[in-house]
Amino acid sequence: MLFFVNDYGEGAHEAVLAHLAETNREHLTGYGSDPYTAAAKEKILAAAECPEGDVYFLAGGTQTNETVISAYLRSYEGVVACETGHIAVHEAGAIEHSGHKVLTLPGRDGKLDAADLEAYLAAYYADGNHAAMVFPGMVYISYPTEYGTLYGKDELTALRRVCDAYHLPLYIDGARLGYGLMSPAADVTLPDIARLADVFYIGGTKVGALCGEALVFPHGAPDHFFTHIKQHGALFAKGRLCGVQFDALFTDGLYFHISRHAIHMAMKLKQLFAERGYEFFIDSPTNQQFVVLTKEEMDEIGKHAQFEIWEPTKDGRYAVRFATSWATEEADIEALAAILPEHK
Amino acid sequence: MLFFVNDYGEGAHEAVLAHLAETNREHLTGYGSDPYTAAAKEKILAAAECPEGDVYFLAGGTQTNETVISAYLRSYEGVVACETGHIAVHEAGAIEHSGHKVLTLPGRDGKLDAADLEAYLAAYYADGNHAAMVFPGMVYISYPTEYGTLYGKDELTALRRVCDAYHLPLYIDGARLGYGLMSPAADVTLPDIARLADVFYIGGTKVGALCGEALVFPHGAPDHFFTHIKQHGALFAKGRLCGVQFDALFTDGLYFHISRHAIHMAMKLKQLFAERGYEFFIDSPTNQQFVVLTKEEMDEIGKHAQFEIWEPTKDGRYAVRFATSWATEEADIEALAAILPEHK
Amino acid sequence: MLFFVNDYGEGAHEAVLAHLAETNREHLTGYGSDPYTAAAKEKILAAAECPEGDVYFLAGGTQTNETVISAYLRSYEGVVACETGHIAVHEAGAIEHSGHKVLTLPGRDGKLDAADLEAYLAAYYADGNHAAMVFPGMVYISYPTEYGTLYGKDELTALRRVCDAYHLPLYIDGARLGYGLMSPAADVTLPDIARLADVFYIGGTKVGALCGEALVFPHGAPDHFFTHIKQHGALFAKGRLCGVQFDALFTDGLYFHISRHAIHMAMKLKQLFAERGYEFFIDSPTNQQFVVLTKEEMDEIGKHAQFEIWEPTKDGRYAVRFATSWATEEADIEALAAILPEHK
Amino acid sequence: MLFFVNDYGEGAHEAVLAHLAETNREHLTGYGSDPYTAAAKEKILAAAECPEGDVYFLAGGTQTNETVISAYLRSYEGVVACETGHIAVHEAGAIEHSGHKVLTLPGRDGKLDAADLEAYLAAYYADGNHAAMVFPGMVYISYPTEYGTLYGKDELTALRRVCDAYHLPLYIDGARLGYGLMSPAADVTLPDIARLADVFYIGGTKVGALCGEALVFPHGAPDHFFTHIKQHGALFAKGRLCGVQFDALFTDGLYFHISRHAIHMAMKLKQLFAERGYEFFIDSPTNQQFVVLTKEEMDEIGKHAQFEIWEPTKDGRYAVRFATSWATEEADIEALAAILPEHK
Repeated sequence: MLFFVNDYGEGAHEAVLAHLAETNREHLTGYGSDPYTAAAKEKILAAAECPEGDVYFLAGGTQTNETVISAYLRSYEGVVACETGHIAVHEAGAIEHSGHKVLTLPGRDGKLDAADLEAYLAAYYADGNHAAMVFPGMVYISYPTEYGTLYGKDELTALRRVCDAYHLPLYIDGARLGYGLMSPAADVTLPDIARLADVFYIGGTKVGALCGEALVFPHGAPDHFFTHIKQHGALFAKGRLCGVQFDALFTDGLYFHISRHAIHMAMKLKQLFAERGYEFFIDSPTNQQFVVLTKEEMDEIGKHAQFEIWEPTKDGRYAVRFATSWATEEADIEALAAILPEHK
Repeated sequence: MLFFVNDYGEGAHEAVLAHLAETNREHLTGYGSDPYTAAAKEKILAAAECPEGDVYFLAGGTQTNETVISAYLRSYEGVVACETGHIAVHEAGAIEHSGHKVLTLPGRDGKLDAADLEAYLAAYYADGNHAAMVFPGMVYISYPTEYGTLYGKDELTALRRVCDAYHLPLYIDGARLGYGLMSPAADVTLPDIARLADVFYIGGTKVGALCGEALVFPHGAPDHFFTHIKQHGALFAKGRLCGVQFDALFTDGLYFHISRHAIHMAMKLKQLFAERGYEFFIDSPTNQQFVVLTKEEMDEIGKHAQFEIWEPTKDGRYAVRFATSWATEEADIEALAAILPEHK
Repeated sequence: MLFFVNDYGEGAHEAVLAHLAETNREHLTGYGSDPYTAAAKEKILAAAECPEGDVYFLAGGTQTNETVISAYLRSYEGVVACETGHIAVHEAGAIEHSGHKVLTLPGRDGKLDAADLEAYLAAYYADGNHAAMVFPGMVYISYPTEYGTLYGKDELTALRRVCDAYHLPLYIDGARLGYGLMSPAADVTLPDIARLADVFYIGGTKVGALCGEALVFPHGAPDHFFTHIKQHGALFAKGRLCGVQFDALFTDGLYFHISRHAIHMAMKLKQLFAERGYEFFIDSPTNQQFVVLTKEEMDEIGKHAQFEIWEPTKDGRYAVRFATSWATEEADIEALAAILPEHK
Repeated sequence: MLFFVNDYGEGAHEAVLAHLAETNREHLTGYGSDPYTAAAKEKILAAAECPEGDVYFLAGGTQTNETVISAYLRSYEGVVACETGHIAVHEAGAIEHSGHKVLTLPGRDGKLDAADLEAYLAAYYADGNHAAMVFPGMVYISYPTEYGTLYGKDELTALRRVCDAYHLPLYIDGARLGYGLMSPAADVTLPDIARLADVFYIGGTKVGALCGEALVFPHGAPDHFFTHIKQHGALFAKGRLCGVQFDALFTDGLYFHISRHAIHMAMKLKQLFAERGYEFFIDSPTNQQFVVLTKEEMDEIGKHAQFEIWEPTKDGRYAVRFATSWATEEADIEALAAILPEHK
């Protein structure tokens, strides 16, 4: 059975596993105080060209989002996000559980528009009752978005400008950051991300690691961020687990190399569906491809390949996600080509 | 200067004040254990025709909403509300501060539509990922709504049916309940409200009291609700303050009598604006009237009367609220008539 | 039946009621924007000799404590309190509900000792693992304490010095502030309190008002404190309710005058118990007197007077509280003298 | 340099690593829906002799504690723990952050005493004001305790009886469960733990895994526990990471085998210190040994071995922890013996 369900369906890249194995019996102190964690941080800051920044490793994406948002916000503040943002929909209320409202704005292809953001902020401050409303205290976007789309450098710069005007930190959820940066459609680099965001994370879980996300503060972290992580249960006692993995991922550009491969596979897959006459739910330049299928097509393809049903479309068909990852092989795409029927 | 800014611009109805004064030096135990509180509860339950129910008095509306919603919800649940609902907009994130998401649906004239609610719930449970989303755990509506509109008995019954189908408690925010029930457009009574809701509150702050809301559980309160109130800081040590006031308000139907008067004044005011050619932002049958004014009209009327700017309209004018209350007098309406220019 | 149960067993001082009545029909804007609230604030700041400070009125003590503590603390911080402090015991977990730990230290006669505080803070920062523990972020004391005892100026100054050394704001819960300041044992004044604390409240509920507490920030409030109050449900829409009451209480020193009367009554009551041979649970110089009674004495006195059982003593007797208030009359003490048996 | 700092200083047992490697490229669905997770659950339930129970895997100890406690408690409830309990001291306020108070009782050698618990509960319910206090809603203990001590079966049974009498769930934090059960001093087995607790966890992080804890509900989990985990950020997308590791740990009794080895090492280490004349801070039968050292002894031993300073003793010396683990080797103990000076 072919596997295109998601980008976390396999273990870790072999180089990551090997680094875990070769360091396995070294005695290392805990909570991120080991040399591999230090090396991983240094390599990440070098790659992001922000050597004065801070890096922390957390266990997973939801808790990374919740911990960092909660660390930045005062209790009367909320976080602004696109209505399809992960924190607004698929984190089981983690942000609200930590006491903060997710202030949602309509999205455009999964993206938060700078003009929409500015209009919202202007209206908020113009409202005579705004002191009885939740203050916007941070802006959250994801790169790539939950629909696989990418912000252009112009769009990110415009968001940054609005954030500056309203003194709002900009946070970029990079659960799939590598798959965004390595897309042929991307016009930003990791240093650009570090320059435009106040904080962002480099996803490991979906890009070659067993688990773990690298949270980067290009200009330094909020006070006592270590304790924030501990309080939110996001701290590994065995900090080496993330340190060693990210040390491997950021040695010799492995993170970018395997991301580029996943995108290469995704573009082949996209071309395949296009050639066979399928319609796309959204035009994605990254590793998540959303195809519109009829029930019959789902059943037929489903005999040979696993994928994820995303949402019903208004015309009674289904938007279906086919994801590639660092682990997808050429042979997988070829096998899909062999079984994919023409769309009629 | 005429006053139509809101319905909490004066103190208390004189009968309420008098009852406070005449009982002032009686020695009474605290936290609602006094006989006036007991009498008030009994009178309210009698008026609502649910003698087996429970009543609690809380200091104000926001904390009543927050306390009751938090008492019903489990930590993974949120409360469903219309996007213009008070809890969604004007409570400074009190619900989120207690850990729960407000799950908003589009409103129709400020009302939550039963079909919209059902469609949302059906889609939620049909979504294969719904366990990663916030569970809908309660439904919140206000009667009258924040825009002064009223649900018909058919609409409330339809909401009740959906709530039953999905095992969701229905909560009615009655900050202005009297002004709804006494409207000529209302086709429900207090006993109807008690029959249709699992919990609702009878607003005192806006209807004749200095402060205080009567929270009614027709079928009984959640366990340890007293402690919930205490934990949320909503408990008066001097419980008599609410007890005595509501004892006065529910003696000889005072609450309904003064509510009816406010509606009578509102209908005169509405007719006045209509006769002078003004357009209404929304057609309200209750004590809040929303009129559309130009900037020039606002300035002109503002020389003689106070009102509240609600929101800008899309054509560059303003939706403005004129509120009546139990304290509005015929003379106020006549004075307004004397200064209100014709709309051109 | 004589009433010594608590100090909130009656309504409001007659001058307070009269001021409510005489201003009742004035049209005033809400949420504390009225002139009576402004006047009350000015009078309080004048009495406290901190004209540059801020004052906010909140509905009750628990929510005042929770709102102010939550406004000062960052999410990784807790509040240090004596183990018998109100926030640690009798607020149903309100502080924890807002996300913060109450860090308790043993008390001495209900008081937090500066040396104990300093030893705790020194040990905390010396602990290599302290980043995995809750940071001390504020110090809470009550004046008078829950046991009626008072801090001397030297004790408060010592606490202040420790707070300064560790950059901790000092918060004084003054639910019964008047009854402390007017005690013959007090060696501090309201301006002293304002000089020593970063924030404190002047209790109204227990000292002549129907409800309400005046929260004073001698050096200014945290940003957006209004929104904090709203979010915590502690904001009266009808802000005049507190404004008018405190305007009366701080006109011509009424607050101090009625507090002094309560203390005068308490000292007579204390002397009475002493003369009849009773033992005191604690030596209190304020309006709460804690007497040790046998079961038989409780039953006998209980035929004529109401009081509150505080806690069992280790020898099988009971610590019982007799409270006086602004409403206690000479005749009440005389009547108690008439029925109080000699202790054998 | 010898390493006795903690029991999480190495990676994973080689069999665990090997199982990760051999399954690495298998395509598995996420969030714990894979067959290795299913197999691990089945093996754990078989070992605990509670085949009808539920098992969930979470990333680490603090979040396991916080998630499970928060799932059981209603908002007005707190969790009872020994004052030295991990949740009371070393989790940075995670429990309070989720809204709940940790109700602490004095410990006896790190243990919660059933009689102390019963006395506390009886006094709580006897207190006329208990509705204004936090309700005890769960009991937390750790096995072994934070001081390495063990409850006897009689002690656990007594706690269970008190919990039954007061309808309180009993939760056992088993971060080092294996090191407790395999101690020669232990008189309970894993099935005993499953019979006595309502919920407990089997620690992986400290016993052979890279990360992960297995949370066991012998009688079934609370409703929607999956969503609780997600909301608390404790859910691995790549659920296989825990599933595969615990599958290895519970195959052929590996978990118990490696735990027994660690205890064997600990007993040798304990005997060594005893023979050399050192005093113990507490008599521990498990893998954590607490020895009292002078400053000079710390310095001398510290030249050759790493350990952790636990706390200063009252006489100016230091309680120091030497921990063994599954990864400690005979050679480590022999090397320690070679450098350990006689205590004078």
